[in-house]
Amino acid sequence: MAPLYIALLHHPIYDKNGAVVTTAVTNLDVHDIARLAKVYGLRAFYVVTPVVTMRRLVARIIDHWKTGTGADYNPTRKEALELVRLTETLETTICEVERDAGAMPRVVATSARPGEGRISFADLRSCLATESVPCLILLGTGWGLTEESLAKADLVLEPIRGRGSYNHLSVRAAAAVILDRLRGDRYI
Amino acid sequence: MAPLYIALLHHPIYDKNGAVVTTAVTNLDVHDIARLAKVYGLRAFYVVTPVVTMRRLVARIIDHWKTGTGADYNPTRKEALELVRLTETLETTICEVERDAGAMPRVVATSARPGEGRISFADLRSCLATESVPCLILLGTGWGLTEESLAKADLVLEPIRGRGSYNHLSVRAAAAVILDRLRGDRYI
Repeated sequence: MAPLYIALLHHPIYDKNGAVVTTAVTNLDVHDIARLAKVYGLRAFYVVTPVVTMRRLVARIIDHWKTGTGADYNPTRKEALELVRLTETLETTICEVERDAGAMPRVVATSARPGEGRISFADLRSCLATESVPCLILLGTGWGLTEESLAKADLVLEPIRGRGSYNHLSVRAAAAVILDRLRGDRYI
Repeated sequence: MAPLYIALLHHPIYDKNGAVVTTAVTNLDVHDIARLAKVYGLRAFYVVTPVVTMRRLVARIIDHWKTGTGADYNPTRKEALELVRLTETLETTICEVERDAGAMPRVVATSARPGEGRISFADLRSCLATESVPCLILLGTGWGLTEESLAKADLVLEPIRGRGSYNHLSVRAAAAVILDRLRGDRYI
């Protein structure tokens, strides 16, 4: 089974007008995706932002729950937040995964936008189950990962489809669906 | 296909010590679950709280995005929030679903705690696909729905399992996994 990692990028990111921006880190993204990483057996969850004050803020919040009074108040939160790592860029994140896993990861970008040559959930699930190459899944914030980031990835995952054409999910909900489809119990 | 509804309960709810409390409404729960409801073709999403000031606050936030300046700023948010309804209790919510669907709904509670006689995701998915009885899914906040609420439901869904024993998800992430398992594309 492939060692699995996930990264939430805050730069470079599209805003609603297609401009490339840096988004703010959302506290609940960190909590929700850390819990998902713990539930689905991921090795680490990278919060990626070039803004040093943002990284410091997130580190302080995590410390509260890991070693502060929060650790006693809510031990399941502590267990989840122990998987969180803070990195500056996509490139340094890939290096960190390589160091942790001992091999270069296959980088899989995600996008709500359709496009050519996307890998299906079924195929990626099957790769992850049978291969041992580490895999890093990239999630975007704001209006999504830039074309530049998609081009840097080895694979781009197909968009989530529900029951119609509307597929505007929060990144927290999208992460839940993606990880469950790739690593959840085979319930159907 | 069964008309599907979802409700997020803020009372009666367990706190971490097992006491029955009323939780505060979390703004992002409303946004995230409304988007999920839209993606998976639900008829409505009920935010259930007995606290009138909370209902007023949520109504005001929704109005901003439905008819205020937010409607122009982010039309996909408007589309999702149009599915939100505000109700006082589980009982009034069931009445509202009956009125909307024209028949009493089957009430399905969810819980992260294991227990006897839970319906599997596969079986509930199959019921929803083949039957026309409306279905109302109940989500808890805080430390979950009370035993009293579970007893009032017609069915209780099995807990979400990932890759180990840890299953402490945010209600936003749990809602995403539940709706995708019940109504997502059959991708595997």
